[in-house]
Amino acid sequence: GRQPCVEFRRRGKEMVDLIADYLENIEQRPVYPDVEPGYLRSLIPEEAPEEPETYEDVVKDIERVIMPGVTHWHSPYFYAYFPTANSFPAMLADMLSGAIGCIGFSWAASPACTELETVMMDWLGKMLKLPEDFIAGTHGQGGGVIQGTASEATLVALLAARSRAVRMILASDPQRPETDITSKLVAYSSDQAHCSVERAGMIAGVRMKKIPTEQSDKYAVQGETLRRMIQEDKAAGLIPFYFCATLGTTPSCAFDHITELGPICNAEKIWMHIDAAYAGSSFICPEFRPLLNGIEFADSFNFNPHKWLLHWQIPLGRRFRSLKMWFVFRMYGLKGLQDYIRKHVELAKEFESLVRADQRFEISADVVLGLVCFRLKGSNEVNETLLKRINNGRKIHLVPCQLSGQFVLRFAVCARTTESRHIREAWRLITQLAEEVMQELPN
Amino acid sequence: GRQPCVEFRRRGKEMVDLIADYLENIEQRPVYPDVEPGYLRSLIPEEAPEEPETYEDVVKDIERVIMPGVTHWHSPYFYAYFPTANSFPAMLADMLSGAIGCIGFSWAASPACTELETVMMDWLGKMLKLPEDFIAGTHGQGGGVIQGTASEATLVALLAARSRAVRMILASDPQRPETDITSKLVAYSSDQAHCSVERAGMIAGVRMKKIPTEQSDKYAVQGETLRRMIQEDKAAGLIPFYFCATLGTTPSCAFDHITELGPICNAEKIWMHIDAAYAGSSFICPEFRPLLNGIEFADSFNFNPHKWLLHWQIPLGRRFRSLKMWFVFRMYGLKGLQDYIRKHVELAKEFESLVRADQRFEISADVVLGLVCFRLKGSNEVNETLLKRINNGRKIHLVPCQLSGQFVLRFAVCARTTESRHIREAWRLITQLAEEVMQELPN
Repeated sequence: GRQPCVEFRRRGKEMVDLIADYLENIEQRPVYPDVEPGYLRSLIPEEAPEEPETYEDVVKDIERVIMPGVTHWHSPYFYAYFPTANSFPAMLADMLSGAIGCIGFSWAASPACTELETVMMDWLGKMLKLPEDFIAGTHGQGGGVIQGTASEATLVALLAARSRAVRMILASDPQRPETDITSKLVAYSSDQAHCSVERAGMIAGVRMKKIPTEQSDKYAVQGETLRRMIQEDKAAGLIPFYFCATLGTTPSCAFDHITELGPICNAEKIWMHIDAAYAGSSFICPEFRPLLNGIEFADSFNFNPHKWLLHWQIPLGRRFRSLKMWFVFRMYGLKGLQDYIRKHVELAKEFESLVRADQRFEISADVVLGLVCFRLKGSNEVNETLLKRINNGRKIHLVPCQLSGQFVLRFAVCARTTESRHIREAWRLITQLAEEVMQELPN
Repeated sequence: GRQPCVEFRRRGKEMVDLIADYLENIEQRPVYPDVEPGYLRSLIPEEAPEEPETYEDVVKDIERVIMPGVTHWHSPYFYAYFPTANSFPAMLADMLSGAIGCIGFSWAASPACTELETVMMDWLGKMLKLPEDFIAGTHGQGGGVIQGTASEATLVALLAARSRAVRMILASDPQRPETDITSKLVAYSSDQAHCSVERAGMIAGVRMKKIPTEQSDKYAVQGETLRRMIQEDKAAGLIPFYFCATLGTTPSCAFDHITELGPICNAEKIWMHIDAAYAGSSFICPEFRPLLNGIEFADSFNFNPHKWLLHWQIPLGRRFRSLKMWFVFRMYGLKGLQDYIRKHVELAKEFESLVRADQRFEISADVVLGLVCFRLKGSNEVNETLLKRINNGRKIHLVPCQLSGQFVLRFAVCARTTESRHIREAWRLITQLAEEVMQELPN
């Protein structure tokens, strides 16, 4: 009755070696691919094969077809966007998750899948020292759930807030049509918030207003501004119901003052959601945990790569994703994870001090965690040219952002294997290209 | 500059063996776990460890903590819900996808990720012989995207339909407030449609009406019923804008008559979405492809495990999921995939004929693909008791459905390794338990 897996044993082990080879030599690859849109279509057939191909043929095509078009997120020369999770324990757990291959849409569909996720979310909540009502425990009302992405977490929080607002209003005015209520709802977020927050408003069909921020306030939403907008909107007959605060914005890693904003939301019965997609993980370090002060005023909270929220989600089919967290938490331990985050923050500080020591450059926003926003003193054009040269070199990869109308370069420490020598080499390259760009400037 | 991966090479290969052992011996495990809700929490610590644990400790806990709570979806004795993908090529590709670990939220974020997905969606579309306007090609307007789940695909289609409806009405009546339009929108689906369709309506904040179906019509939505509901709603000032047809419903694998329903939707400018979550894959076999006739009237179409739709999605971060399809399509070939589906359908027919040969049982819905709906002739109670006995035995696993008020057992051929002998053994067990249950009945 056994189904022998001889071929999988062989190919699986070959794949382990292929992966190890890839990761060991990732620095030798250009971090950013040199291909034009549409490159891949001409490299493979227009239709699936009728007959099976050999595994050897498929493997050969990894280098021929796939690798030329890969942006290598785990190269120590990758400083774009934000980091994404990848570790050996995570990969091992993912293999197991694929083999078990259960779909966790209900407890009975695979009890271990639901239960491990509940407990891992509690482990995570305790690592972050979240208030007790965010923890599921044995009889708790709180608890977290792994969402596919931060976008989904933000949307789910907005939908929960919408549902609560409608319920509250119907309780005091049962005859009011639900469509009339939703047409008056208004949600708020910072003008620095991620585009997925605005998109969540569009999906849920509610009005979403952006709260302006200023460089002088470090791009944080001010209580006074929020309060004024709420009063104006209420006076105009609207119903404020949701505020999405950001801890660690995408452009500059700015932090909204939730200790000030939370009480305003609570008093106005506005659902406060906290999106800490990037910064959230850092709160497991005691020295960064104060950035989360004010969480006690929040109704919901999410962060990447493991998102935190009440038990609800849009997808029904879901993988056994908590296995990854279990493997990672145990094989690193809390201390190992703290060390890992601290090392990234230190590397960012090292890069910051290199920038500050060079009079031609300026730092564009406070460096709190692993993101450094910087630019050449000068026009947007010269900075755009510099970034283009950097990325065309394909040795390191950065993406830009806009801050107060300025074109700014974002240097995010991303890869697990980034060391001081990579930071220094990146800086050497940046200054060398900056010199070239400036020499070409008309006098 | 190399980061040696010695430990991963060793542990990765051990994990390959662990997975092969698991799958080779999966038949020996009880298919459905014997645990109570909350079982897992007491088996592991309440908090993450401070210091790293050894990999040996983690691996030991797979059997101690995880396996007792797993529903084994890939056991050949698993006949519950619907099948889910798991194959060696898919697992190999998933390992590679994890190692590359890119986030494909834009073309530049990893061109190969976006491009392979586009081409694989075309391969799939051609395998299904979808109309030309569903194909991206080099200059096409169509194309597919891999959604996380069918729930998301249905939601995205509904949002697209909502957006199109609002745009069309604003074009002829620019002064009309958008909230007034959305408050009048009405969407339709079968009363046999998946709960995620209704939920999509709730998320998008639009009215969703269920169209009643009848056993005598094989649980298919009738054109006359849809037409009547549209006319009544229009007369009441509502705006019909979306109809979600189902090909292969979850309870009984029923097929809405899209050749009849499509022209009605087209004439009324109603977006017709087709949810073929389960049945969709079967359309790669010419003998099942006629079930998809009428697709030419549809605006969008999705199916599992690989979902089909226009280029848009809710999550921003996404894995390199098309690698899985690439590996699977090539290592099976179209013929291999067709053979695989045909074998499952044959096994279902074999089970059906076993049921039909036994006068105590009846078949509750046409067996078209791999799902057999059946029951003991008799009360709902006796069938509920039978199912309970079946699942308590933990040798095979089935879930029920309701059809026309009757409690019905669903027998879905799921595992890749299911053979005729498993079907016959399952039937032997079912009849044996049925005998027990009937003997206990009061005379």
